[in-house]
Amino acid sequence: MTLSDQPAVAPSRRTHPSPSAPVVPSAGVLRPLGMDEITVTGGFWREYQSLNAESIIGHCLEWMERVGWIRNFDLAAAGTLGSDHAGIEFVDSEVYKLLEAMAWELGRSADEALAATYSSLVARVAAAQESDGYLHTSFGHPGQRERFSDLEWGHELYCFGHLLQAAVARLRTGHDDDLPAVARRVADMLYREFGPGGRTAVCGHPEIEPALAEFARATGDKRYFELARLFVERRGTGTLAPIEYGPEYFQDDVPVRDAEVLRGHAVRALYLAAGALDVAVDTDDVALKNAVARQWENTVARRTYITGGIGSHHRDESFGADFELPPDRAYSETCAGIASIMLSWRLLLATGEARYADHIERTLLNNVLASPRADGRAFFYTNTLHQRTAGVPPHPTDVSKRADSSMRAPWFEVSCCPTNVARTLANIPLYFATADDAGVQLHHYGDYRVDTRVGGERVALTVATDYPFDGEIAVTIHAAPLAGLRLSLRIPAWAREGATWRCADPTVTFELLEGHVAVSGACAAGTVIRLDLPVQPRLTFPDPRIDAIRGEVAVERGPLVLALESVDLPQGVTLDQVRLDTSAPLEGTAAGATAHLSVVAHGAGGEWPYGGAHTVASEALGPVSLIPYYRWANRGPSTMRVFTPIADSNSETA
Amino acid sequence: MTLSDQPAVAPSRRTHPSPSAPVVPSAGVLRPLGMDEITVTGGFWREYQSLNAESIIGHCLEWMERVGWIRNFDLAAAGTLGSDHAGIEFVDSEVYKLLEAMAWELGRSADEALAATYSSLVARVAAAQESDGYLHTSFGHPGQRERFSDLEWGHELYCFGHLLQAAVARLRTGHDDDLPAVARRVADMLYREFGPGGRTAVCGHPEIEPALAEFARATGDKRYFELARLFVERRGTGTLAPIEYGPEYFQDDVPVRDAEVLRGHAVRALYLAAGALDVAVDTDDVALKNAVARQWENTVARRTYITGGIGSHHRDESFGADFELPPDRAYSETCAGIASIMLSWRLLLATGEARYADHIERTLLNNVLASPRADGRAFFYTNTLHQRTAGVPPHPTDVSKRADSSMRAPWFEVSCCPTNVARTLANIPLYFATADDAGVQLHHYGDYRVDTRVGGERVALTVATDYPFDGEIAVTIHAAPLAGLRLSLRIPAWAREGATWRCADPTVTFELLEGHVAVSGACAAGTVIRLDLPVQPRLTFPDPRIDAIRGEVAVERGPLVLALESVDLPQGVTLDQVRLDTSAPLEGTAAGATAHLSVVAHGAGGEWPYGGAHTVASEALGPVSLIPYYRWANRGPSTMRVFTPIADSNSETA
Repeated sequence: MTLSDQPAVAPSRRTHPSPSAPVVPSAGVLRPLGMDEITVTGGFWREYQSLNAESIIGHCLEWMERVGWIRNFDLAAAGTLGSDHAGIEFVDSEVYKLLEAMAWELGRSADEALAATYSSLVARVAAAQESDGYLHTSFGHPGQRERFSDLEWGHELYCFGHLLQAAVARLRTGHDDDLPAVARRVADMLYREFGPGGRTAVCGHPEIEPALAEFARATGDKRYFELARLFVERRGTGTLAPIEYGPEYFQDDVPVRDAEVLRGHAVRALYLAAGALDVAVDTDDVALKNAVARQWENTVARRTYITGGIGSHHRDESFGADFELPPDRAYSETCAGIASIMLSWRLLLATGEARYADHIERTLLNNVLASPRADGRAFFYTNTLHQRTAGVPPHPTDVSKRADSSMRAPWFEVSCCPTNVARTLANIPLYFATADDAGVQLHHYGDYRVDTRVGGERVALTVATDYPFDGEIAVTIHAAPLAGLRLSLRIPAWAREGATWRCADPTVTFELLEGHVAVSGACAAGTVIRLDLPVQPRLTFPDPRIDAIRGEVAVERGPLVLALESVDLPQGVTLDQVRLDTSAPLEGTAAGATAHLSVVAHGAGGEWPYGGAHTVASEALGPVSLIPYYRWANRGPSTMRVFTPIADSNSETA
Repeated sequence: MTLSDQPAVAPSRRTHPSPSAPVVPSAGVLRPLGMDEITVTGGFWREYQSLNAESIIGHCLEWMERVGWIRNFDLAAAGTLGSDHAGIEFVDSEVYKLLEAMAWELGRSADEALAATYSSLVARVAAAQESDGYLHTSFGHPGQRERFSDLEWGHELYCFGHLLQAAVARLRTGHDDDLPAVARRVADMLYREFGPGGRTAVCGHPEIEPALAEFARATGDKRYFELARLFVERRGTGTLAPIEYGPEYFQDDVPVRDAEVLRGHAVRALYLAAGALDVAVDTDDVALKNAVARQWENTVARRTYITGGIGSHHRDESFGADFELPPDRAYSETCAGIASIMLSWRLLLATGEARYADHIERTLLNNVLASPRADGRAFFYTNTLHQRTAGVPPHPTDVSKRADSSMRAPWFEVSCCPTNVARTLANIPLYFATADDAGVQLHHYGDYRVDTRVGGERVALTVATDYPFDGEIAVTIHAAPLAGLRLSLRIPAWAREGATWRCADPTVTFELLEGHVAVSGACAAGTVIRLDLPVQPRLTFPDPRIDAIRGEVAVERGPLVLALESVDLPQGVTLDQVRLDTSAPLEGTAAGATAHLSVVAHGAGGEWPYGGAHTVASEALGPVSLIPYYRWANRGPSTMRVFTPIADSNSETA
């Protein structure tokens, strides 16, 4: 579908012709494609688009009506909002993330009912805006705290950031109407308050930084970009008051350009890094760009779970020390995974390096997609890698008290993850491919169509595959430039050995480069390029510095991390008895694998769990199924582990 | 010293002649000895008594004056206390714990300056008591919340509990004066408010339960005991409102007598269990006693660190699931160790089973004693088993924001541990020995003297040893009953094989029983009984269900858990490179051991810490010193680990 197919959902004027995409840097190696240039045609990703459109978005809307978070705006508009505000300080942001999701979804589909719902929700938000542009339901109303009186914990600018991102989605899908107008007034108010000559301050929760950068790009108003830059530069200079968790919690310990690794609250750290990269790219600040890239590198190398999940401390939702990655205490917040993708995507656009696309794929498939339940009506907030006890499903109408529910929950007191999943899935194909002056790059595989222009000439192709379950990928060219097509196909790191490619047309050439294979050729319409990635299951061992999984092994299959779930074990066998025989072959199954397991005998347990060396007897169990991690906990309460002890390791002498 | 040696420190009358001890059950297998019956004479424990008397008690007093926690009482007495209250809701309890420490210390020493300080502090507390007996600096004053308006988090009864325990210490050291009078009025007020016919409620933080039980025993007023019983029985019936951490946080999920294991907030769980056992013992409630014993068993077997420390969740200071014991996230709060000793001691008195004494020894030497710095002026609140990065010492005049400082800190916003250490060390010898109708039981070894009566006849003996560093223990008998002495010497579980005993008098007989050796004989004055415990260092392996330390091994020496601290490694070697060669001999040193280590080469680290199997090369490092865990972090910032990876385990194929 192209933009011209869309119905006008509200009075609007066309914005300038930048791609219909969430991130459009002014410079960079790769150019993002817009919603009019890339379309999912079926398969795995169509199912997720449908889940989002038919379940998740509506689920979030229903819940926010039920718990009064939308009504907060109505009360504010009526002048009757006060200490009866529903929810914690930053629930406005959930409404904005849902508006962002709806805007992208409207950019994809012509759902009139959704358009009406969207317009109505925007109207309720807009009605709450004050005459000077300020718009927040938790501050400044009678009986509430003063505006900007609690920058450490108030989340005001965080909420404004999500409002601006919702406006960017609306602008980039072709409508400069009510919400962008509201957002301009908010951004102008912020510029007056915090811009040059204003107060030297930052928000305790970064998010305004990437939002202002993108809003500047989408509106062309450079003041907003300057404000983003100021917020990035002020961070780490101690403008925030001391808090219990220390200044690193909100990255106020070290200036962004001096930091070596991401630290503190994971979502905060990643949103900030994304905004810092936006600033670096558009101001050609190489030192800042390198600083962010270095932080990404060190964080991925030392502070990231195999699923791409990050954050190992529940207490403050923060990174632990290097290699402190306990699977049973993995926080791995869904929002941190989404924020990680936001950062990796910006680095990919800036550098073109395939490792960023690799990490997006890992995080998307194994962390973010684990969050929604198969029916899209319950979510993981945290994403543990080892569930020791079978959880109790939250009641379908209860707001979950705790972030670390061991079962997916329909809603949370802090419910950032469901709406973040919704806005991410709403523009998911935009992460699949990019273009540059020479050609097109395919970073992710699925059933989709690309129709864009390279050097002024049309390039059209379709991708067809059962990926991530199967490694056979067919790219059919429908239109290529007269001088020939240059196409880049990402080869994931796990496929470097074993990936093959071919084309029936002998004039099409292939060259394996760092992280991708470069395809060149005339590529007449109908030319099919085939890529085969080796998705047979494989054993993956941890760096020995990750003490918590020493002597254990994971199974991956293609881009999917697999998990052993108790419901797949024979009756009477518990997950803490199981060992994986690394010498026996793994077999691929439709979506997962089977592995040969053995079982050790644990009695009722001794009086004291530490003692002299002794050998634990084990018995072969034969092959047992492993499923994709992202699908676990969809068959009722269970226990689960991603890393399984290796059979006959020294760990058994205990 | 006997009680008659003590100067009167305030107008007082003698209480009934129960032992001068903190816990005096009305029934039980063993009888606690009082301060007049057991006296430290030198060595290891004298050093700790001196540290407490000369540093810790004064340090706590100085800090509480400095931060205004004592001044709160002055303001309350003057009627000027309000919203300017210093500190969090339960800082009164720190003053009470210090008063308890001082009372026990005054029971031991005749320090007139301390007596004057004590009396002055009591007077300041007493002046703040209201006419109806209520006494709290955080509730009920102008601008403050109403009394008992926040039982979930207010800690009012928790504070009263510590006040009662301070009064018990005063009563049991021979003085029924001002503080016991204050405490009676508090207890009477509580009985009116929460007793039969009063409100059916409990405090969110247990502590009032064991305190009331003991105050009842010390005063003979059975109403207080009845109130303790009511509080125990009400727990687990959902009288507390829902909180973020769920009802198990304050043990309101299940009635005490129905629970299988300790859970929720560790200190809360243990204080409650101690009070429940007090109730069970004095009411001969076998089901309740068995429930507490079962909870202790399951907790020790599955939810306890090798140091005796408990609590693996920082977020809510709680137990994790069974076998969820990550060393680098060990919370192991010092107060939880103290609470664990309180519970084990009560179980030991009730049953006489040596396993409880074993666990007291482990927890005292390896968890509680780790808290105070060698100079007694800084403390660990949490006691990690694996320090990954060298911490930054807190500034000597700063109140530490965080519980989980990686270095000992002089004071904390929640500063429960220093005063808890003070009150524990102040009566430490009372845990060393007990008596029954037949004889005397020695549970712990050190330089001390016992002088008591058994069956109406005097028993006097001295113990001399360099334990815990050396295993040779000499018990010299000075007085024994005419019919002969029966003496029980605990054989710790780790010494069951290898312990030897002897006596030059061939008429003295020995019989090895469960956990102890029973000695019988005429034992003329001067008879020396020698016990030799095998304290050579040994390897200790974890249960394989403790995933976080799979493939790792600890070294213990006698009752001491040893640790490898980075300051003992050669220059250039980091703790995450080290492997322990379990085939090479361990050698004992003065206080610790040497072990043969090797070093694996970690480069700068790969881009991604998960991958295919490969072997890591290692190089022998030779013998390296391990020190007693409790002494670590006394030589500047360092890294440390209790469990070290085993050389050449499968963990290296990664």
